[in-house]
This record gives sequence, structure tokens and C-alpha cells, in this order.
Amino acid sequence: MNMRDIIAKKRYSEELTDEEIAFFIDGVTKGEIPDYQTSALLMAIVLNGMNDREMTTLTLEMANSGKTNDLSYIGSKAVDKHSTGGVGDKCTPIILPLVASFGIKTVKLSGRGLGFTGGTVDKFESIEGFNINVDSADFEKYVKENGMVISGQTPDLAPADKILYSLRDVTSTVDSIPLIASSIMSKKIAGGADAIVLDVTCGEGAFMKDLSQARELSNAMIKIGKLAGREVVCVITSMDEPLGRNVGNVLEMMEVFEVLQGKGEEDLIEVVTTLAAHMVKVSDAKENSMSVDEIKKLCRERLNDGTALEYYDKLLIGQGGLIHSTGSPIYKDYPTEVMRLTAPSDGYISAIKADMIGNASVELGAGRLKKTDAIDYGAGICIYKKIGDKVSKGDAICTLYKGKGSNIDEDRLEKAAELAFDAFVFTEDKPEVPSVVLDVCC
Amino acid sequence: MNMRDIIAKKRYSEELTDEEIAFFIDGVTKGEIPDYQTSALLMAIVLNGMNDREMTTLTLEMANSGKTNDLSYIGSKAVDKHSTGGVGDKCTPIILPLVASFGIKTVKLSGRGLGFTGGTVDKFESIEGFNINVDSADFEKYVKENGMVISGQTPDLAPADKILYSLRDVTSTVDSIPLIASSIMSKKIAGGADAIVLDVTCGEGAFMKDLSQARELSNAMIKIGKLAGREVVCVITSMDEPLGRNVGNVLEMMEVFEVLQGKGEEDLIEVVTTLAAHMVKVSDAKENSMSVDEIKKLCRERLNDGTALEYYDKLLIGQGGLIHSTGSPIYKDYPTEVMRLTAPSDGYISAIKADMIGNASVELGAGRLKKTDAIDYGAGICIYKKIGDKVSKGDAICTLYKGKGSNIDEDRLEKAAELAFDAFVFTEDKPEVPSVVLDVCC
Repeated sequence: MNMRDIIAKKRYSEELTDEEIAFFIDGVTKGEIPDYQTSALLMAIVLNGMNDREMTTLTLEMANSGKTNDLSYIGSKAVDKHSTGGVGDKCTPIILPLVASFGIKTVKLSGRGLGFTGGTVDKFESIEGFNINVDSADFEKYVKENGMVISGQTPDLAPADKILYSLRDVTSTVDSIPLIASSIMSKKIAGGADAIVLDVTCGEGAFMKDLSQARELSNAMIKIGKLAGREVVCVITSMDEPLGRNVGNVLEMMEVFEVLQGKGEEDLIEVVTTLAAHMVKVSDAKENSMSVDEIKKLCRERLNDGTALEYYDKLLIGQGGLIHSTGSPIYKDYPTEVMRLTAPSDGYISAIKADMIGNASVELGAGRLKKTDAIDYGAGICIYKKIGDKVSKGDAICTLYKGKGSNIDEDRLEKAAELAFDAFVFTEDKPEVPSVVLDVCC
Repeated sequence: MNMRDIIAKKRYSEELTDEEIAFFIDGVTKGEIPDYQTSALLMAIVLNGMNDREMTTLTLEMANSGKTNDLSYIGSKAVDKHSTGGVGDKCTPIILPLVASFGIKTVKLSGRGLGFTGGTVDKFESIEGFNINVDSADFEKYVKENGMVISGQTPDLAPADKILYSLRDVTSTVDSIPLIASSIMSKKIAGGADAIVLDVTCGEGAFMKDLSQARELSNAMIKIGKLAGREVVCVITSMDEPLGRNVGNVLEMMEVFEVLQGKGEEDLIEVVTTLAAHMVKVSDAKENSMSVDEIKKLCRERLNDGTALEYYDKLLIGQGGLIHSTGSPIYKDYPTEVMRLTAPSDGYISAIKADMIGNASVELGAGRLKKTDAIDYGAGICIYKKIGDKVSKGDAICTLYKGKGSNIDEDRLEKAAELAFDAFVFTEDKPEVPSVVLDVCC
């Protein structure tokens, strides 16, 4: 077996055998296949596709390319959640304590932010004292003590996926249903999940640009799940505007805290409770006999009555996070307003381009352009008007923030302001406000 | 401008601009573009194609990536010939002296053999004393003294093509009309040709498997020629069997000598005279006013009456080749019969798979599997029966040779015999004998 023949098969749209895919991933993991052969095969996969069996084999080979987590110590079905990436997506810090209140123990492995989507790891790290780098040996201890654990991804989890992903990034082979689906699913399977609820974001600011693409990706992941013996539910959510109100690390954690106090934006609450309800539904919590709508109602109650907040405190304190006497977490930095943008005329907001808001936030220092970039935890954007809102000329539409202790480059601020302003799309007539949850596939 | 965006454009079937192609080839030549980005772009070109303008720009950028030859010292239109690769193809050593007899001065740059097709350089090198490594500074001297010069390709000619070719070889991106067409044409244009006659081989033993593919490649090269201001004629020839009778370096040069003495196989003579006639037609020789058929007739006469042989002697002696008192060249080694294969039953030959004969010849030591392999000049195969010939059980169909002074590994001999035997396809009924020249495009 050799890579040249494997590449040639995919170049001629032939199916790869399980043995050929295993040979490829094994060689990639061991560093035995030169990058130029890997990238040629990736481009052939992007353009000629893969069938369900090929995708599933690719997923399982990547999942098994490193350590895999055995979560049997949880003593119940291991349920995981994952988002394909959104701007303003702060669901995980709300969902983990929320589902913990149903007795669902989660071991959540998250990533850092790169490009315009933020990373959950960076968000938790913005809390003073919080230990996000949990050694996998300590997972069990944390789960037993706190009912849940959140950690940065360990490098030994699905290493083949990491190698392929970094190569895809520089060879324009990211945008491919089989490659995206297998990348996501390989990490979830290696992480030890029995059931996975996926938030598939959809819109200009997401990988999937429209509903049909999002359904295609969802179906691919559901099929991989079926063939790999994992239950998969995909909730397709809109990225026609950032989720909720705040973008940026501390700003988002502040919004998390609000939602857990029964406040917050409706779109964020709707997405959080929908995802949480589906997690409960596929778990072995006793509430799984209820309908998803009934569980969702329960979830809303637990956000409003402080139940979820209790579990959030448990999570934070359990992993070393510092909490103020007022009950609020203590952050590493605090947002300071640097510029307020206003509506240029009377009208309505019809869209807020999430990728542009995300990129503006990166320019402010909230995210990274390169893996090695430092982060300004206090930087970000607060959005005052959402899709469907009426604005009068001069009304504040958003504010740009930097951290208290940081300086901001004038050029980057100007670029951020331009991006943020251009992200808002205005219309004269009141637009229809689409629902944020577009579809559920399973 | 960056490679990631250029790859993405081709991945989405968009046209690349001239500037983007120039950026790519410049970066490849300078070693600034990592191989993994180059191979991803090559695969995207293979699968999504290139239009005529893109192909032409790619060709000219590759041609200009190194030194280009100025052949104005010839004092007349510079006419070149090239073959896309065949087994038993010994046309160049016959055509050069033949067209020289019309006053056409040629500067021929040839390659070494790799894989199952032989290289003209190796064939000339099998003549004792012949200097094939002519310094490009000496081209002019040789052309003035001998009327023609043949040399190995200098490494500074179209270096970008060399880099891309070696990468295509290991990433299964060889088989692509725009990439093959631009590779061939870039070398010919860098070589300084004004007009180019191309032998586009077609059949199981060639890059182009059928006539429609061969026509597609021909038309691509003709279009590049038009846009680049070079006259191009493509003669499509059959590779349903090896050309002529002998395969292997000394064996082929012996056959060359026979043809120049008015003997030899009809298919070889037909291809040689057709190519030569088209070269005369596009040259500024006074015979260019005659029809191609009339020139072809003249060519046959000059093979029969010894005129071409005189020029061959001039070429050999001019570049240091040694000639026997009998008039025959002196070779570095001589073929010794090691095995004779016979027909397994009565019938007719309907095809002789050229690639298998080529590979059998490589096993015998006549060619290279790796660039660094040594060559046994005396090794090769002599074919006694051609398509359409009647055979009786036990008739000799071919003989396998090794060099007098060399040893042959038993396993490789067995493999060679098996390949050579399996190359012959027998039928009960007399098959139609197709003509060797299938089409001429210009």
C-alpha cells in the first residue's frame, strides 16, 4: 500500500478501503507521510467527497490515533455538547451547570479561540484562579467532587486530527463536509462521549453558510454517529447575528452570569435551553421521559430560580475560580469603553454580520490571529440592538471595549470600529425576525 | 497575495489571474512556497481544470523561471520536435539528420529515461565517445559545425517545471491536460523554439489512453502555442504496440542505423517521415512550399539513398561518437540473448501492450526505476511479430537481451519474461491493422 495509489484512487473518485484510510491516518500520526502527499489527498477528498463508510472510518481512525478517554467512572451515560463555532457563543458555561442540576455529569474538553470565533478555554481562563488545564488523571476527581469538569484539550487526544487540521488551514481544504464532520466527531469519540448534542451554526458568520449546508453537515455527523454507535442530535442555530449581546472573554462571562441570574437575551436563552433539553433527553436522567419542550421549560425555570447558578458556583470554586463577596466571579481584567458606535439613520436592524463582529473583536485584542498571540481579556464588543430592533439616527448600536490595563493601537481600533459598524445592516421597513433555532436533526 | 487564497480560488473553480499564476511560479522557483501548498493547488488544478489563458500564463511563467535559449544565431526559424513518450520511440536520432538534410538546424534538448519510457540521452550515450553533455555555450559551435546538436537538458531550463514535475510524480497529479500541456510547452519555449512538432502518443502504453484524450492534449498545446506566438503541429501516433522492433538503448540505436540504411519497420518509418515532413513544412526550408505528402516522399527517399545517414555520421562524429570501419557506430555494450519467448498457440497478434514491454525492458536493466539507477546499455527486447502478424504455436515472438558484460538477477529475468509474454494479445481471427499515425492537429 502506498500514498501515491491512495491519492490516485480519490483523484478518480473511487472509494478508499478501510485499510487505506487506516494506512493514511497511521502514517500521518507517525509523521511518515510527507505533508505534500497529505494535502494532495485532502484536496481530492474536498473535491470528490467521501461516502458514509469512508467518513466513519476516517473519524474512528482519527479518534484512535491517540489516547481515548474511558468515562465509565461517571457511572451513567456520558453526554457531551459541541458547537461548530459561533460569535458570542457562551453556551457551554451556562449549559454545564444547568444539566448538572439534572444529575448529568459532564467531562467537557474545549478549545482556545483562533480567528473570529472565541474559545471556551479563554473565557474560563478570564476568571481569576480558575484552573482550566486539568490533567486527564484528575478528571475523575473533579467530576466526583463537582459533578462536572471543564478542561483544555489534551494534545494526546486525536493527534491525527490536529495534524490534518493545521494543514487544512493553510491549504484551503477546511471547507468540506466529510473533513469537518470527521474532525468534530473524532474528538468527541476520543473524549469518551456516548451521546453528543451538536450546535451546528449556520449563516454568514459560520462554516455552514445556509440551512441546506448545515443540514448536510448535521446528517453527515448523525450518520457517522450511527455507524460508530454514538447517539447524535444536531441543533441548527442561526448565526445571522452574534448570539446574545456580548462578544469578548470577560464580557461574555459577565453575560453568562446574568443569564444564570434569570436575565439575559432571549436568543441566547433559547439556544442554551434547547441544547440542554436535548442533552437531558439523550441522558439517563430520570427527566428523559419528558418531552423536549417540557424539559426546556424546566431548564428555563432552573435559570430563573437560581438552581443552575448554584451548580455554576460549584464548578468555578471546584476548579479554583475566585468569587467576590457579591457572588460574582472575579475577572482577570475588566472592560473599559473605548468607543461607542451609533445608528447613521432611522430604521431597523435586519442583520449583524457575526464574522465582522468577531473580527472587530479580534482587532480589539479579544482574540488571536496567530496561535501565539496574547489575549486582552477585557476587550470586546457589547451589542445594544439586535435583528428586528427599531433605531433612530444617533442611537447607540454597540460599544467597543479594551481591558482596563491594556493599551490599544489606534490603527487596530479604527479597523475594529469600521468592521463593527459595517457589520450592522439597516433597512427602512421592519424585517421579519427569524427564530434562532432553525432545525433539529437526529 | 497569498497561496491560501489562490488555492481557495481554484478549489472553487474560479479563474486564476496572470498575477496569481506568476506569484505561484515565482514562489515555487525560489523555494518560498511549501510543497504542501503547491500539491494542494496542483490537485485543485487537476480536478477543476484551467482555461486557455491560465494554461498559457502557467506555461510562459515556467518557461521564464530560468534561463531561456536565444537561438537567433541559427539564422533561420528554430524548429523543435518532442514526443509525449513512447516505448521503442527512437525517432529523434533519425529525424535530426533527416531534417538537417533540408538545411534545418536543430538544437535538441532531451531527457533521460525514467520508468517504462526510454530517454534519448541514454540512447546516444550508449555510443562510445559520444558527448551528450554539451554546455549551452557550445550549442552555437556545434550547430555551425555539424548543422545540429543534441544535448541533455540543462538544469537551469524551466526549473519551476522540474520542481512541479517531481512533486506531481509523488502526489498522483501527473494525469492532467493543463499540467501536461504546460510542462511540455514550457520546456520547448524556454529551449528557444519558434515552431514545434509534437508526437502525441496514444494508447494503453501512453499518458493519453484514447484518441479523444490525445486530441484534447493536442488542442491544449496548439492553443498555448497560438497565445504564446509559437507554431504547433501535433501528430497523434498509436502506442497500441511499441514503435518499430527494438526496445533498449543499443538495440534501438542499432534499429536507427538500419532505418538510415533504408531498412526497418514500416510503422517506425511512417512516424519518422510524418514528423520530419511537418518539421520541414513549418520551417523556412525551400521545400516548405511542397505538400506534406510530397515532403514525406522526399524523406523516404533520403532514408533510402543514404542522404540522411551522411548527416547522422556528421552528428555522431561531430559530438565525439566513435564509428567502426564498417560505418556502424561503436556501442558501449552489445546485446546478448538470454531468453526467447514463443507463441502459445496458432493465431494472430492483436496488440502488444507497450507499457508492459517497457517495464519488462526496465527489469532487464535497460531503464531506471529510480533516477540514480545504472543502465545496462545492451539490455532490452527485440519483437519479431507485430499487430496483424500470423503466428503458429512455438514461433518466436520476442527475445530478451542483457549486455555482454552484465549479470542479470534471476528473479528480475523471470519478471521480465512474464511481463513481455503477457504483453502479447493473441486472437484467432486476423485483426484489423490500424494505421500508426492516427491524426494530425494544427
